[in-house]
Formats: sequence, structure tokens, C-alpha cells
Amino acid sequence: MVKRFETIALIGKYQSPDVAEDVLHIAAFLRERGHVVLIEQGTASSIGVAGGFPVASYDGIGASADLALVLGGDGTMLNTARRLAEHGVPLVGVNQGRVGFLTDISRDQAIPRLSEMLDGRYSEENRVMLSAEILRGGERVYQTLAFNDVVVNKGELGRMIEFDVSIDDDFVYTQRSDGMVVTTPTGSTAYALSANGPILHPSIGAIALVPLCPHALTARPVTLPDTCRIDIKLLSPHDARVHFDGQTRFDARAGDCVRITRSPYAIRLLHPENYSYFAMLREKLNWSAVPRLP
Amino acid sequence: MVKRFETIALIGKYQSPDVAEDVLHIAAFLRERGHVVLIEQGTASSIGVAGGFPVASYDGIGASADLALVLGGDGTMLNTARRLAEHGVPLVGVNQGRVGFLTDISRDQAIPRLSEMLDGRYSEENRVMLSAEILRGGERVYQTLAFNDVVVNKGELGRMIEFDVSIDDDFVYTQRSDGMVVTTPTGSTAYALSANGPILHPSIGAIALVPLCPHALTARPVTLPDTCRIDIKLLSPHDARVHFDGQTRFDARAGDCVRITRSPYAIRLLHPENYSYFAMLREKLNWSAVPRLP
Amino acid sequence: MVKRFETIALIGKYQSPDVAEDVLHIAAFLRERGHVVLIEQGTASSIGVAGGFPVASYDGIGASADLALVLGGDGTMLNTARRLAEHGVPLVGVNQGRVGFLTDISRDQAIPRLSEMLDGRYSEENRVMLSAEILRGGERVYQTLAFNDVVVNKGELGRMIEFDVSIDDDFVYTQRSDGMVVTTPTGSTAYALSANGPILHPSIGAIALVPLCPHALTARPVTLPDTCRIDIKLLSPHDARVHFDGQTRFDARAGDCVRITRSPYAIRLLHPENYSYFAMLREKLNWSAVPRLP
Amino acid sequence: MVKRFETIALIGKYQSPDVAEDVLHIAAFLRERGHVVLIEQGTASSIGVAGGFPVASYDGIGASADLALVLGGDGTMLNTARRLAEHGVPLVGVNQGRVGFLTDISRDQAIPRLSEMLDGRYSEENRVMLSAEILRGGERVYQTLAFNDVVVNKGELGRMIEFDVSIDDDFVYTQRSDGMVVTTPTGSTAYALSANGPILHPSIGAIALVPLCPHALTARPVTLPDTCRIDIKLLSPHDARVHFDGQTRFDARAGDCVRITRSPYAIRLLHPENYSYFAMLREKLNWSAVPRLP
Repeated sequence: MVKRFETIALIGKYQSPDVAEDVLHIAAFLRERGHVVLIEQGTASSIGVAGGFPVASYDGIGASADLALVLGGDGTMLNTARRLAEHGVPLVGVNQGRVGFLTDISRDQAIPRLSEMLDGRYSEENRVMLSAEILRGGERVYQTLAFNDVVVNKGELGRMIEFDVSIDDDFVYTQRSDGMVVTTPTGSTAYALSANGPILHPSIGAIALVPLCPHALTARPVTLPDTCRIDIKLLSPHDARVHFDGQTRFDARAGDCVRITRSPYAIRLLHPENYSYFAMLREKLNWSAVPRLP
Repeated sequence: MVKRFETIALIGKYQSPDVAEDVLHIAAFLRERGHVVLIEQGTASSIGVAGGFPVASYDGIGASADLALVLGGDGTMLNTARRLAEHGVPLVGVNQGRVGFLTDISRDQAIPRLSEMLDGRYSEENRVMLSAEILRGGERVYQTLAFNDVVVNKGELGRMIEFDVSIDDDFVYTQRSDGMVVTTPTGSTAYALSANGPILHPSIGAIALVPLCPHALTARPVTLPDTCRIDIKLLSPHDARVHFDGQTRFDARAGDCVRITRSPYAIRLLHPENYSYFAMLREKLNWSAVPRLP
Repeated sequence: MVKRFETIALIGKYQSPDVAEDVLHIAAFLRERGHVVLIEQGTASSIGVAGGFPVASYDGIGASADLALVLGGDGTMLNTARRLAEHGVPLVGVNQGRVGFLTDISRDQAIPRLSEMLDGRYSEENRVMLSAEILRGGERVYQTLAFNDVVVNKGELGRMIEFDVSIDDDFVYTQRSDGMVVTTPTGSTAYALSANGPILHPSIGAIALVPLCPHALTARPVTLPDTCRIDIKLLSPHDARVHFDGQTRFDARAGDCVRITRSPYAIRLLHPENYSYFAMLREKLNWSAVPRLP
Repeated sequence: MVKRFETIALIGKYQSPDVAEDVLHIAAFLRERGHVVLIEQGTASSIGVAGGFPVASYDGIGASADLALVLGGDGTMLNTARRLAEHGVPLVGVNQGRVGFLTDISRDQAIPRLSEMLDGRYSEENRVMLSAEILRGGERVYQTLAFNDVVVNKGELGRMIEFDVSIDDDFVYTQRSDGMVVTTPTGSTAYALSANGPILHPSIGAIALVPLCPHALTARPVTLPDTCRIDIKLLSPHDARVHFDGQTRFDARAGDCVRITRSPYAIRLLHPENYSYFAMLREKLNWSAVPRLP
């Protein structure tokens, strides 16, 4: 017996009036099918109208929705995932441009794909999130979640930073570099990939440490079990900027420790039946391109 | 109550008479402590004498030893692991040169470290092995194990080869390259690392695919759950050579499929109490080196 | 006063009957314009007919042609370049498939582009070649040219090889690796690029050493002035296979020295007026692709 | 007839009182040999005393010194090179710590090595510098020199930037990345190397473009002739920070163009007789390390 998604929330790309038509079109389609439809508050105000549908905050959505449809790109998915993480609402992504790493459904296929999924023809996948906190003098001064990555980066001065890395209190090394990307499997195809990090299949319980322009030529990405606790401690006099999914950031000071563990919350992603992780990679990374060198 | 290692086998580096002194010295030490000592057959014949200790084949060791001490480098450990895999005999490595990735104990510390371990002060770790088979026209024509890696490589002609990769029957891509390394976490610090593969912590349930000089610039290492089945199918007219731990090989033909899964057998590695995976990496990869660039 | 290309040779892809139509079509076009047309001997026999045009060997072409039109891919250009190197005959490439790194003119644009060029609207570029020799016990045992690269590679056994590299008798390092690519700027976009070598603009007087899967993590490609003499000496017991443009090879033995210098002969490439090196790179390396990561 | 270095300037590490002893020791040695000795102004004030030696500004040194001895690390050499570039004063580096890429002489060998060099036993090398300017609305708003590199980098926000690259008005590509390193051969072993750039021998007339974490997986370092003009134009809305040798910087705005050419000034580096570029690389990059993988 497949669960029925009674209440469905629609979340559009941030401050993008141009998703209005799609949001209203899909909302009408869902109402037609007998679902209760909620429009996310910011989305409603961006698109200017809510077409008579109830408006809800992220917390309201978390409390009452059985499914959240995200209309936007991977950035919108990241933001929604972080906002709804604690509530366990499953997510489906409808891309507004080209299909993304997280938004499986193309805009022009939205209605038929959603119909199938609402009929129960979908697969569900759990994706790990990171819990990150900044410790200063032993006190937690900041805490947040990340779905893709936590990036500890050189700050304003643009000089390499130095930090100690420890795993479960076991010292790994002192690194001098532009910074470090700590990535989930989901984030392994995002910024970490540009830094030569490894692609991690989403079903591996792993977190990768990917150094950014490391000074030592022997530095390499290291992939760790996601059950471990990663501490990155900034060595004096190095301040750093810490970025979470490229969406929020924190200015950390020399002596601060960025502590990263797997979050107790996971993201539930729903995919259409014909979804294939490798097909998505192939398309996004251009693997299907005909070989070109002689 | 710590298990007592009643019968202990000694295995020396292949065809290396120079391990004779160490083998006999450790054998005498073990006899002194009341253990039954076996000398591996090839080792006994390489060193010329067995000092009155019983000699045993690998199968004999597998059947009756409670522990195998390997005196050699990582190559000797790889060979022993593959030979004893089915028997579950735990292994300890005593390096004859510098400490290796798998041989934790340095030669000059052998007696004190072994004393501690035989007293029960050690940690045990399970390391995954790969099971590899070559399918030709649907029939299995070769089968073996690998502890580090399976390398599908261009053969004699030195021309790039082309092959299809599938994971659990899901097509990944067609690759044109010098070949592909399929590596366990153990092998991730060996050949795969030279090919820019990611370091995988041994406790991650993962296998990495690391392309060798891929023609397409978008090819990247991919890390997969070790529960999957990896098929590498050689496309006509490309023959290839397949290497297992760099120790045995098979000449595969166009059309052959190299199928790789996790072996049901795992290797039990025993480490001294003070063992740290990261300390070992730091030392072997020179991570402790003082930064050198300006 | 632009030089008139009185005698023009046509050279087709090796053993490819399917270039027959194009060869004859272009030959007729050239005869129409009043040029003397020669068909390369092997091409004539591959395509079965010579349409009444005189047939010539590579040496004959070298002796009498003012221009050679190559109909094929980059492989055909490499082969022609090596064959005609000593004669200084300028080359123009008409690609039979997609445009190549060396074959600027697409098949369907052949006649209009050639018309322009024969009217004098073209640019000429000199490309460096390598002269390679194998020294054994001080004696030269092999000598050849390479337009793209000389690749010293592990041979049959598939084990890493070890060799000393010296530049102008100044020792650089001992390397343990799968081998070494020594590449011209022309070859820098071919195999060397798959091995993470740098792209070298053709007008730089440089040769790059690109290690293949080097054992030492600190190995990096090194770019040298093309006036230097590069010696790669195989250390015992390592034999190796040496490849020249991927077209010919030599089995070198432990102790042999592969000596590489810039050849006194350069290749004269003629390009259509609208040729742009960067446009070609952009197209071949897919740089025009819309960015894809989130 | 070897030129005599009549007037020699001593330049110490910036704001480092601890070079006082060495500065005064070498100054006394030079006076003893009959040279006129100048102490750089900032150096004199850092070390607190000038020991009776005349003090001079960089301009004063440029106007009257025949040689500048730099006591410090590569950073001090970079700074001195930029300050004295227009004057053509040859430089010699005496390292205060370990020997650097630019500072050939170790502290404890300073007197014997300098004696030899002052006797005429040295080699001279010319190193290229970059001239960089920022154009805004067609006007030059900033201009400076760089000996190592010009780094166009994402600024405060930490988001990837986008820019167009053109070479001699020929469009190369639009890149989205963390930024771009434009490096001389001298800088190729500094920051650019951490970003996977190629090592360029100092005698090659080349400048390399090394992308920082490029979004497109097909981006690669490109090496250009140093006679070309490189334009990096920031695309709206991307501001960037531009760093010159990691010593000065400029906040560039969307629309600005960073224009880089070879400076008309070159740096004259003097080396001791036994200097070897490859020996220096080997030592600094740890190439002499014994291979470590199994």
C-alpha cells in the first residue's frame, strides 16, 4: 500500500517571479487530483499571487506537508533541504532550466512525471547531511547544517591558511592551503569536484576531505566513514571564512575549531521510476560526449 | 578472555634468503613462549634451513595456524592475504625495510611489539577483498581474488582501450583510456594513488574506479558501495591485460567482461596497540614534511 | 607576390577506401585550377583508382610537391608529417570526420577553403618535431622522428619502470612510474593531456616531460626549452617500450638511453585565414560547453 | 675582465631584527674587501643599528648599487625584485632559513659563496617579470609589476567568479572558477604549483594560465608565449580581488579588465658556480625522496 501524499507544498526558486506560471500550473494540477496544496511564503510573495492557495512558512510546511515540490535549481534544493531537514518531509525537484544534480524532473515533463510519482511509481533515497559547529574556547558559537559541503576557506587577505585536522581525536596532519572542502556524497559532484575531489555514490556512508590548493604536493583527498567526527582547528594567526552549502557563512578566528559530524537528519529524495544516478552523472558531466583527442 | 595464538606460521619474503636470520630469531622467540611454530614451505626452502621447525604449505597453514606472521614488504602481505583468504587466519606484518602500508611493525621492534600482541594487546581490523572473474561468452574463464586492486590495462600494443562500465547492470559510460583501476580501500594508497585516485579509509564499505589516462577530460574517479557488481566489458577490437594485485594477470580479449564484486572473504589484520592509520599515512606519504613552497 | 602551389600531392587516410570520392573530387578540382596533381601511392592503391592522376611515393612527393593535402584525421597528419619532414613540404589537413587538432578544414568546406588558400589567403605556422634515438652501450641502435610525442612506457610485464632523467647532462631525478611522455606543443593536446600535462601553445619553444602515474606524489610535469637534450636512461632490470607518435615503437632494454632533441626539421602547417588556435581548442576540448555544476 | 661590484647594497627581511647580526657581519666582510656598502633604509631601522654604513632607499640603491644582497626568504626576493626592477641591479639571495627557490645561498655558506662570486665565479640569469594593469572603462586605474604571479581571485563573498579570457584580442573562453593564476616561469614553482600548474623552466619564454577550481572539468592550464597580451575581463556581477606576488592587491570590479604583458624589465639573478636549477627543484620538491608506495 503506497502512502498517499495528502498535503503537498510548492517551493519556488528564491526571489524569482518567473516561476509563477509553473507554480500555479502545478498547484492547479495537484488540487485537481485532490491534494491539499501549500505555497511557501517567500515563493508566494515573489510570484505576487498565490492563486487562492494557502501560504505557509517552512516550519508550517515541515509540520503539515507530506511532500515538498521544489521548482528551481540545485541551489533551491539545497536551501529547502536545510530548512526542512528536521521534519523529514520528502523532496522532489522540478528543474526550471536544465535538469540538475538534485532536480530530476525537467520542466516540460513535470506533469506526467509527477502524475506517476503521485500514483506511487517512484523510488526513495536517503541522503546524508552534515552537522557543523564552530567551537571557540570550548564553547559552541555557531551551529548549522549542510547538505553539500562545509568549506573552510582563506578569508579576506587571500593568504593561505594553516590548520590541524583530527579525526575522532586522532591527529591527521597540519595543512597549509587555500582551505578545505568537507563534502557529503551529494556535494561530491558540486564544488568538491572542481577541487579534484572524488565522486562518491550517494549510498556510501562517507565524507570526503578535499584540500584546496594545498601547499604540500603530497596532499590528497581523503575519504572517511561518515560516522567520524572531523575537527579542523585554525592555527594562529590564521582566520578563515566557513561556508555552508555556499549559502550561509561564518567568520572563524584563529584558534576556532570547525567540528563536523553526520547530522541525525537525512534528506528523503524521491525520484521518478526511470531515474538513474549514473545517467544523471553522464548527462551532467558530459560523459556521453564522443571522445575527442586523436 | 583474550584468545591465545597457539599455532603461529612464519612467512618470509618470496625467494629472499636474507630473511633467514629474522625468521629463525622470531621462531625461536615464539617457541620459547610456548607456541607451535610453522615455517611456510617456500620460505623454508629460500632460507635453506628450517631450524628444526615444522614446514607447512599455505593450505596447511590455513588449516592449522591461529596467526600468520609475515616478514617482508607489502607485496609479501598481498600474496599471503590472497593465499590465506579463505581460511580467515589473522595476519601481522613485520617489515624488512621501512614500515609499509600493511606491515606495521619495524624489524628492530619486532620482538617487543610481538610480545605485547601475543599478550593480547592489539587491535583487529577487517579488510575487504575483491573477487574478480573474467566472463567470455557468458562462461567464467578465470577467477581470482585481489586485496589491493584489479587493473584492466592496455596490453602489448600500447594503444588506448575502450570498454563499457556497468554497475549492477546500470550502464555508466563507455571509456577510452589506458585502462581502469578497481581498488579496495587497502589498494587506494597503492597504484590507484599514482593515478590520482582518492584515499579511502579502510572502514568505508567502498570500491573506487580510477581511470588511467582517460581520453575524455571529464572522466573522474568514482567511489561506489562495495555491495555492487562492477562489469567492465572490452569493446572490439580491444584486448586488454588484467592484473590482480600486480601479482597475477590474465590476457583478456575483446568481448570479455571483467566482473568484480566484494569477496565473501575478508582479511583480518592485527595491529600493535599504538597503531594509527593516519600516523602511518603521514609517515608513508610524507605528510609530516615541513611545507616547502614560499 | 604569393607563391603558387604548382604541384599538389593528395594523401588519404591509411587503407581507407572510403576517402576515394573526396580524393578524386579534390584532385579534379585542382586539375581544373591548373595544378599538377599527385596521388600518394598507398592512397591510390587503397582507393583502387587514381583517376588518371600520376601516383607518387612519399619520397617522390617530397622531391616534387609544393603542397600536400592530407585527407584523414590527426593520425594521418602525424604519419605524413614524419614521412615528409625532411622535405619541408607544407601540409594542409582536410578532416574526414570532425575537425581535428591538426586538420583544420572540415570535409564539407574543403573546396571553398582550399580555393581561398590556393589564392594565397592562408597563414603559415612552423611546428617543432622531436628527433629521438636509442643509445645502447654508447651506440645508436634506433633513430626516428616524432611530431606529437615520444612515450617511454612500461612494457609487457605491466610493472612500473625506473629511469634516470638528465637534461643537458644535468641530472634531474630518478623516477619510478608507468613511464614518461616527452611532448612537443603539438602533442600537448594529445596523449600528454590525458596524463595531466600542460597545454603548450605551438609558438612556445618548449618540450614537456609528463610522468605517467608516478610513484612519487611530488612528481609534476616539467616544461623545458626545446633547445635542450633530454636523456631517459632505463635502470636495471627495467626494460621499456618506446612509442613514437603512437605509430612506431622500439623495445628498449635496461641500460638503454632514450635521447630526445628538437629535430632540425620543422613542419610547415598552412591554415585557412579564419583559423584560430583557441577556437580550435575550444571546440575540441568542449570549452564552449555551458557550465554544468550547480 | 670580470666586472667588479663596486657598490653593494644589503637588504634584510622585512621588519626582522633577527637578521641584524648577519647583515652587519656580511657588511663588515664586504668593507674589508674594499666594496662600498649600503644598508637598505627599512632594514637599517628594523635592525636598529647600521654599524656606520650608509643607509639608502630602494631608489638610492637602484641609482648607485652594482649588486644587491638579499638576506631573507623568497618573499624578500620578490619584494626586492619588484622594487629594483627598473634599475637592473643584479640580485643574490642569502637564505635565512632553508634555501629557497630564489635564495640560493644558505646562511652558513654565505661568506665563502659570496667570496667566490665577488671574484667573478658566478652565473647570471635573466628572469622575466609581468607588467599588470587594471583597465576600467578604457582607463588604466592601477599598474604594477609581478615577479611570480598575478592572481585574479574571488573576493569577499567566496562565490565563483566569471570572466572572459582573451589573448592578443583572440577570445579564448569564458571561465567560471575561483579565479586564475597568471604565472611567470619563476612563479610556476610557487602558488601556481599548488593549483596543479606546470613547472616552467626559467629559460622558456612562457607565461602560464592556471585556473583555480574551475567549474568546467575540461579546463586545463594553458602555457602561452610571453610575448602575448593576456586580458581577463570580469563579467557582471562578478567583482574580484587581484593579487600581485601575494604582496599587493587591488579590488577589481565587474567590467574591469586585468591586462598582463611581459614587463620590459627583467630580473638579473646571480647564482654561485655550483648552482643547478634541477638540484634546487629536487631539494625543494622532495624529489630526492626514496619512493614510498609498495
